[in-house]
Amino acid sequence: MPAYTAPTKDMQFVLHEVLKVTESGVKGYDEIDRDFTSAVLEEAGKLASEVLAPLNLSGDREGCRLENGMVSTPKGFKAAFEALKEGGWNGLDLPEEFGGQGLPYVMGSAVGEIMVSANMAFNMYQGLTHGAIGAILAHASQELKETYLPKMVSMDWTGTMNLTEPHCGTDLGLIRTKAEPQDDGSYLITGQKIFISAGDHDLAENVIHLVLAKAPGGGEGTRGISLFIVPKFLVKEDGSLGARNGVSVGNIEEKMGIHANATCVMNYDGARGFLVGELHKGMRNMFTMMNEARLGVGLQGYAVAEAAYQNAVAYAKDRLQGRDVTGTRNPGGGADPIIVHPDVRRMLMDQKSFIEGARAFTFWGAHLIDRAHREGDAEAEGLISLMTPVIKGFQTDKGFESAVQAQQVYGGHGYIEEQGMSQFTRDARIAMIYEGANGIQALDLVGRKLAQDGGKHVMAFFEMVKAECKAHNGDDRMKAFVEPLKTASKQLQQAGMFFMQNGMKNPNAALAGSYDFMHLMGHVCLGLMWTRMAKAAHDALDAGAADPAFYEAKIATGRYYMARQLPACAMHLARIESGADPVMALEEASF
Amino acid sequence: MPAYTAPTKDMQFVLHEVLKVTESGVKGYDEIDRDFTSAVLEEAGKLASEVLAPLNLSGDREGCRLENGMVSTPKGFKAAFEALKEGGWNGLDLPEEFGGQGLPYVMGSAVGEIMVSANMAFNMYQGLTHGAIGAILAHASQELKETYLPKMVSMDWTGTMNLTEPHCGTDLGLIRTKAEPQDDGSYLITGQKIFISAGDHDLAENVIHLVLAKAPGGGEGTRGISLFIVPKFLVKEDGSLGARNGVSVGNIEEKMGIHANATCVMNYDGARGFLVGELHKGMRNMFTMMNEARLGVGLQGYAVAEAAYQNAVAYAKDRLQGRDVTGTRNPGGGADPIIVHPDVRRMLMDQKSFIEGARAFTFWGAHLIDRAHREGDAEAEGLISLMTPVIKGFQTDKGFESAVQAQQVYGGHGYIEEQGMSQFTRDARIAMIYEGANGIQALDLVGRKLAQDGGKHVMAFFEMVKAECKAHNGDDRMKAFVEPLKTASKQLQQAGMFFMQNGMKNPNAALAGSYDFMHLMGHVCLGLMWTRMAKAAHDALDAGAADPAFYEAKIATGRYYMARQLPACAMHLARIESGADPVMALEEASF
Repeated sequence: MPAYTAPTKDMQFVLHEVLKVTESGVKGYDEIDRDFTSAVLEEAGKLASEVLAPLNLSGDREGCRLENGMVSTPKGFKAAFEALKEGGWNGLDLPEEFGGQGLPYVMGSAVGEIMVSANMAFNMYQGLTHGAIGAILAHASQELKETYLPKMVSMDWTGTMNLTEPHCGTDLGLIRTKAEPQDDGSYLITGQKIFISAGDHDLAENVIHLVLAKAPGGGEGTRGISLFIVPKFLVKEDGSLGARNGVSVGNIEEKMGIHANATCVMNYDGARGFLVGELHKGMRNMFTMMNEARLGVGLQGYAVAEAAYQNAVAYAKDRLQGRDVTGTRNPGGGADPIIVHPDVRRMLMDQKSFIEGARAFTFWGAHLIDRAHREGDAEAEGLISLMTPVIKGFQTDKGFESAVQAQQVYGGHGYIEEQGMSQFTRDARIAMIYEGANGIQALDLVGRKLAQDGGKHVMAFFEMVKAECKAHNGDDRMKAFVEPLKTASKQLQQAGMFFMQNGMKNPNAALAGSYDFMHLMGHVCLGLMWTRMAKAAHDALDAGAADPAFYEAKIATGRYYMARQLPACAMHLARIESGADPVMALEEASF
Repeated sequence: MPAYTAPTKDMQFVLHEVLKVTESGVKGYDEIDRDFTSAVLEEAGKLASEVLAPLNLSGDREGCRLENGMVSTPKGFKAAFEALKEGGWNGLDLPEEFGGQGLPYVMGSAVGEIMVSANMAFNMYQGLTHGAIGAILAHASQELKETYLPKMVSMDWTGTMNLTEPHCGTDLGLIRTKAEPQDDGSYLITGQKIFISAGDHDLAENVIHLVLAKAPGGGEGTRGISLFIVPKFLVKEDGSLGARNGVSVGNIEEKMGIHANATCVMNYDGARGFLVGELHKGMRNMFTMMNEARLGVGLQGYAVAEAAYQNAVAYAKDRLQGRDVTGTRNPGGGADPIIVHPDVRRMLMDQKSFIEGARAFTFWGAHLIDRAHREGDAEAEGLISLMTPVIKGFQTDKGFESAVQAQQVYGGHGYIEEQGMSQFTRDARIAMIYEGANGIQALDLVGRKLAQDGGKHVMAFFEMVKAECKAHNGDDRMKAFVEPLKTASKQLQQAGMFFMQNGMKNPNAALAGSYDFMHLMGHVCLGLMWTRMAKAAHDALDAGAADPAFYEAKIATGRYYMARQLPACAMHLARIESGADPVMALEEASF
């Protein structure tokens, strides 16, 4: 069975030596000093290793069951959920006003990574709740907040997001679910929603559905959409649970992975719903939830890869097969451990250099969110808005590739379910699809985010990269980072230029290159992160750090990323510059 | 449920307009004219669409069962297997002497693609038999041939390959299974073999295991290995079945995919075995079987991708979501079919251009085998030996990527098992692993095949590419093919040069780049195929072909491959030229 140990040392490095959180002046960041974060991360790691990870494989094999309209989760999940609640983990970065601990978002992300690595399907029950809380916090009335949030923050009640219907996922303007206004100000919701993660289960007393539906008078398409709270059990005035609402589980889907999370068909038959925010502004309100959810999914991308990587490393050190061509390493055994083989190392280095880069990128994104929310920093807000599709799309694609590589290290044993490596691949696959398939992320990036606020944020990003390169002028040790980063950044700018010059005449010229642009930008972002990490590592070594091996490995891993991954940028640029013609040339009938 | 239609038109194009089989002068190729191959492929396509494809999803869900030592296959498999036998499909390219039809290998490959696309797990029962027959044909005594081959060619008996043991897969020198010589010339085989595909089942009367084992006196490592036939039921002198042999199924594995093929743990407890070929030369003999098996796996890579692609196209034409940014295409509906979106087209074009290129590459490889076997053409033999790891490694990696992309076209529906797209991804995954994991293919290519016969074959390949480019000198219509092919071929040569200059001093400098070299070479091979196909298409158009749309689509698809896929070559070269340092820098303890 796969094992998992939280990479707390690497997390500490990113928090305190790269982001330097306590020096950053963000409200509340003074609290999260080295000792404090160490205590939190170690504790989360303990729960993850001892309680959550051991349920990952068994949860996958057992899956969820629907019997008599009730969904049950795999054995052990209920007790684990209680342990999670007792630790107050869900409320970590939620407002103290509603029972949370009010810690920064960046802490929520670090702890989130640990939980996802240990058991992605399990963590989704709290992850979805977290997203739903975000939308309620941002848009609901004080009354609704007071009714729902305390119980959701404590996770006595969990939350869901209900967007997709059988005939519409990406294109929410097609939604058919209806909301009929009632005299008491509530609505009756009728329709069918599908792919509802954590739609029902036996872990909580109540499930609070956030549902997109069309109320009369809103007009066509997405304009007519509003957002509603629809609880599984109605809540009485005293806060206790009342009657069962008119919402039920039609089915749970059999999926490729995340078996332990119930993906439900939800049927709303005149269920009582309560409007969140303004009528007919549901899309905007839902996006609050979605943007945060997208960052969470981007985090899943590398978090699952981390768990897979740890096991691939252990296997590569343990499995004896073949000999080191440069000289026998294990003369007492019949063969050397496979980690001696360059191609096995290549696979491990691909994984390691991606994961550590993605961790820094994700924590930096979380830090931007804290800046935006805690300091009202509009530039940080613009930057994270630009980065969100990259974090989601790039990291989940690469995370999946990474999990596939970890599985490959196991050879034939990787294909056998009992080893658990197949599960990482199957689980990681969903992150490329949900919360907006990755093609939609690319569209969001190129079609919307690049031009947002007159292109101000992408220009700011280019300036940031330039300044980073400039800062290391004359530092020979940083050359292996700065030179490839400069090149990649220029390629990204050139791609943006191509879109500007061609996209006006023919929008398809930009759209045909959107996916490659997202990946090109992902590499530039990870290149930037590696440059910062390398600098931090050199600084630590210069200061005589107690653990030089850690910092030397960090620099070597970064050099690998720059040398072996950044060459992908030229490929993406070449594809982009080939324009729309190759992509659009074929008649539909010729496919 | 996914549907499948055999791409017979494209197969005919490759056979008759690209390879021009009847003009090639290979013995027996005069028979396989257009009408004949059309009849065979249509008939195979019918069986595939009507009998095999409908069992693909149900076979996956039901899987195989082991009860009381007996393995049963999913519902419908037995009847389908009888239909396959009645059609004589297994014996298609096997010698008439033993009941086969004696058709060229290239026909076997074309029919094989159809069967694999329709139902990969099902086809493995005959595929393994085919491989086992190959080894027996090449190395066994006349007596063994006469005893086993007629029943295997008719598939009353099926075959297996037994190499892997719990502690060794790649490194067969570690094998522990023992063969003790008996007075009657037979051997008693004792040991455990794992991951035995089609190891047991209810489709045939007998299973003929080809087993690697160590007989006394052969020395250490692979030198001591011999190859044995170990039948499930011993065969009496009159050819009827006798006693059960001492071989049994210990377990069937739960796998990520190919659920309908039984992957068995086989226990040999003093089972009676019969030596195939010379004692202690088992590795060489097994490789006969493995090389053919590797080509078969390379074929699986794109054949599964083809089935996935067909369904992705159908979904993209059917699913309505969003609007064409250049103008509404389906004003009567609420949205346009998603095939209008450039990023969906990109995914479909990636798949289509890979699959058609891989088909040409595979058929060309099969044609080389025919040249080698039927004409004793040593150059063809050397060339296919060089190409085998590329066909296996590159095509299965890309085939998996392609299946993942087809699944992505389905969005959330692609993750739900009932749609069948997840199965294509899960099934395609194994092809990257078995018959030598793809890292081993890369090692075989760079560590062995490049230098084989003094590098003669790779030089011949470079000359072939050069001649192809030269042949189109001055033909402007071919520029979009010739220029990228030239560039890519130079990059491949440069990579080879890097290995020569650095690999002698440090073998890891070559091995660290082996995987990238395999992919770089795969792209050059597909670039060569697309150049040839484009020329054939232009020739057909010049000659006033009745179906110009087919040829125009062929050219457009090829242009896509050259413009959007060949830029990967520069990336692979850059990685290769970064050498061993980035890959090997880390201390083992730092992973």
